[in-house]
Amino acid sequence: MPSFDVPEGDPFGPHNLPYGVFSRSGSDSGARTVGVRLGDQVLDAGAAARALASPYASLLSRPTLGPLLAAGRTTWSDVRRALTTWVTVPSHRETIAPFLHPLSSVALHLPFEVADYVDFYASENHARNVGRIFRPDATEPLTPNWKHLPIGYHGRSGTVVVSGTDVARPSGQRKSPTDPAPVFGPSVRLDIEAEVGFVVGVPSPMGSPVPLSSFREHVFGLCLLNDWSARDLQSWEYVPLGPFLGKSFATSVSAWITPLDALDEARVSPPERTHPLLPYLDDSAEDPYGYDLRISVAVNGHVVSEPPFSTMYWTAAQQLAHLTVNGASLRTGDLYASGTVSGPAPDQRGSLLELTWNGRDPLALPTGERAFLEDGDEVTLTAWAPGPHGTRVGLGEVRGRVRPAG
Amino acid sequence: MPSFDVPEGDPFGPHNLPYGVFSRSGSDSGARTVGVRLGDQVLDAGAAARALASPYASLLSRPTLGPLLAAGRTTWSDVRRALTTWVTVPSHRETIAPFLHPLSSVALHLPFEVADYVDFYASENHARNVGRIFRPDATEPLTPNWKHLPIGYHGRSGTVVVSGTDVARPSGQRKSPTDPAPVFGPSVRLDIEAEVGFVVGVPSPMGSPVPLSSFREHVFGLCLLNDWSARDLQSWEYVPLGPFLGKSFATSVSAWITPLDALDEARVSPPERTHPLLPYLDDSAEDPYGYDLRISVAVNGHVVSEPPFSTMYWTAAQQLAHLTVNGASLRTGDLYASGTVSGPAPDQRGSLLELTWNGRDPLALPTGERAFLEDGDEVTLTAWAPGPHGTRVGLGEVRGRVRPAG
Repeated sequence: MPSFDVPEGDPFGPHNLPYGVFSRSGSDSGARTVGVRLGDQVLDAGAAARALASPYASLLSRPTLGPLLAAGRTTWSDVRRALTTWVTVPSHRETIAPFLHPLSSVALHLPFEVADYVDFYASENHARNVGRIFRPDATEPLTPNWKHLPIGYHGRSGTVVVSGTDVARPSGQRKSPTDPAPVFGPSVRLDIEAEVGFVVGVPSPMGSPVPLSSFREHVFGLCLLNDWSARDLQSWEYVPLGPFLGKSFATSVSAWITPLDALDEARVSPPERTHPLLPYLDDSAEDPYGYDLRISVAVNGHVVSEPPFSTMYWTAAQQLAHLTVNGASLRTGDLYASGTVSGPAPDQRGSLLELTWNGRDPLALPTGERAFLEDGDEVTLTAWAPGPHGTRVGLGEVRGRVRPAG
Repeated sequence: MPSFDVPEGDPFGPHNLPYGVFSRSGSDSGARTVGVRLGDQVLDAGAAARALASPYASLLSRPTLGPLLAAGRTTWSDVRRALTTWVTVPSHRETIAPFLHPLSSVALHLPFEVADYVDFYASENHARNVGRIFRPDATEPLTPNWKHLPIGYHGRSGTVVVSGTDVARPSGQRKSPTDPAPVFGPSVRLDIEAEVGFVVGVPSPMGSPVPLSSFREHVFGLCLLNDWSARDLQSWEYVPLGPFLGKSFATSVSAWITPLDALDEARVSPPERTHPLLPYLDDSAEDPYGYDLRISVAVNGHVVSEPPFSTMYWTAAQQLAHLTVNGASLRTGDLYASGTVSGPAPDQRGSLLELTWNGRDPLALPTGERAFLEDGDEVTLTAWAPGPHGTRVGLGEVRGRVRPAG
């Protein structure tokens, strides 16, 4: 599939076409509108649709992906087919060209309003590492429920920010076991969690669980996500009601939402289940919804880990089925994340907590030793997945720099 | 202060004036608009403002309280002053009369779009009861952090529903210690939690904690809240990341938001602090923000408990300061709840878990014995607070009936 200005093999070629929201400083006082990434360019999808008299012009001429997300799978497929035509059929070239802008010339924004944000804990390797670090004397690092349900909790949707947003080091209470009382100050154990986020498009009413088989009808696509974590705040606060201020200061997401339709070649079976599953979670007779995403975690440009998403024990379809099995409704813009992605190998761990074994084994980076993040550090998550005909499908990066505590 | 059609001593007299959103089935195809409660009537506040050429006509002619919430304290006071004049000064009587509708003739709606929902755990009596029930052998029922910070967690804002909404019994996994594996089915330990919710009006930017002294600048008012809880789901899922499906199926709020300005006579000092507080939580030199709210919990019309909100260890001002101390931003429509309100006496406990001591001592109701809720049971929370000159300020009720699992 030839497409103008995209080199052969580019992970953002016309086989990918992720969606975002952008603005150009010079134009229309920087109004936001839907963009589709093509190589190192952004297609103003609404302007292109209007020029081509597409029926999707209105849906794509919005300051958020919300209406597109809500439109449902048939429309998602139709819009994707139209976009593919526009960027690949030579006769459209002249029409489209004025609406392609260099990525470097635009500002990217949070692409949709986050309704509820849920974070899961779906990597067995991660959960085992955390168990071993915090409960070294326990015979079993996993909690008894871990293999029976995808553990999750609600996070703060108001502090989900787009890639490129600086993150201020949070302050709060911490108390080591030897401190007589808690102390207050900037976190001294600031960490990241490399995750994948799933974006709900089509809502569901209260009282109507979404079965495994309906995953694709509700979920539009996915993004990369960095669940910034202040380990010292978290460990003091989290018993008995879970993480709160240790997480709620910021969660970064990629500016690009990759539609599930771009990732069909990347679908894989999840790891073999070691425990029988209750029927609503039993995916043995369903289409598999594991994804072969190869994530890379870099600190100050130096790759420190390559977590394989294919190793996740619980799939996004299982997470959605669990999240709604009690009758909880879904809204357009609901975002749920996988939890830290960690593979079995030491260099596949998705958090500094695990990579440095809670600070015991600092990482040697070109910019110095790191147990946890220092002010000024920049963390970048990138990922790709196998695409059609040997191509790669690139996910949008998540980048964030640590600012000193205010 | 005489006001037409409100009996002397009515807890919803002109000293109260809570806000809600209502519609009338006959009019304008049931359009929603801001209402103010006066006795057993609802004033169409926008229509009254337009008739009186008030500068607040636009703010009050909306289908949600959002714009009013966002307008800030000066406007909140000005609007309240205007409303007080309209409903008390005789010369306005004729103008206002057409815009007063009997409560029984209108539908009440969720009064604002809930942004993030946070639930705290601020009653020492409740926390001690829960500790004693679930950890009977522990020497100290409170977790070590309890007296140092207001423990909280995020809930699901998409399933916050207005009073009067039926609640379907949730299904999910449960496992008693003697079960060899978890089982799936409708919750068999469905409970309530009597709480008070605080509604954020004015947002705050990321990285800017809200100090104790700014509580009134951000929080508009409060409501009653029933945090429905499936104890069996909750106890199996909640380690290590906190409550999830045991809570996320529904949270009911009153249709009326009582402005803080109506509750100045109800302000009291919180209980004496037994542990020193870190400076950001130390309210010893601040105006006290405890509230003397007398809550009543009824099951099928029979009062089972009268929890006193004045006994809460952590105040709403402390909760807001804690919630933002890590730099988390606030949005208009953020809702945070107190956690179960339980007083020291057995008949002041705000949950069936405590009232029946985890089912050991069922309640004898006229409708039969109850350990937990049965299908068809209706739970109603009501409350009042001391008002000016010996009056009572009524809070809007929260009512909800249990529907069988779907």
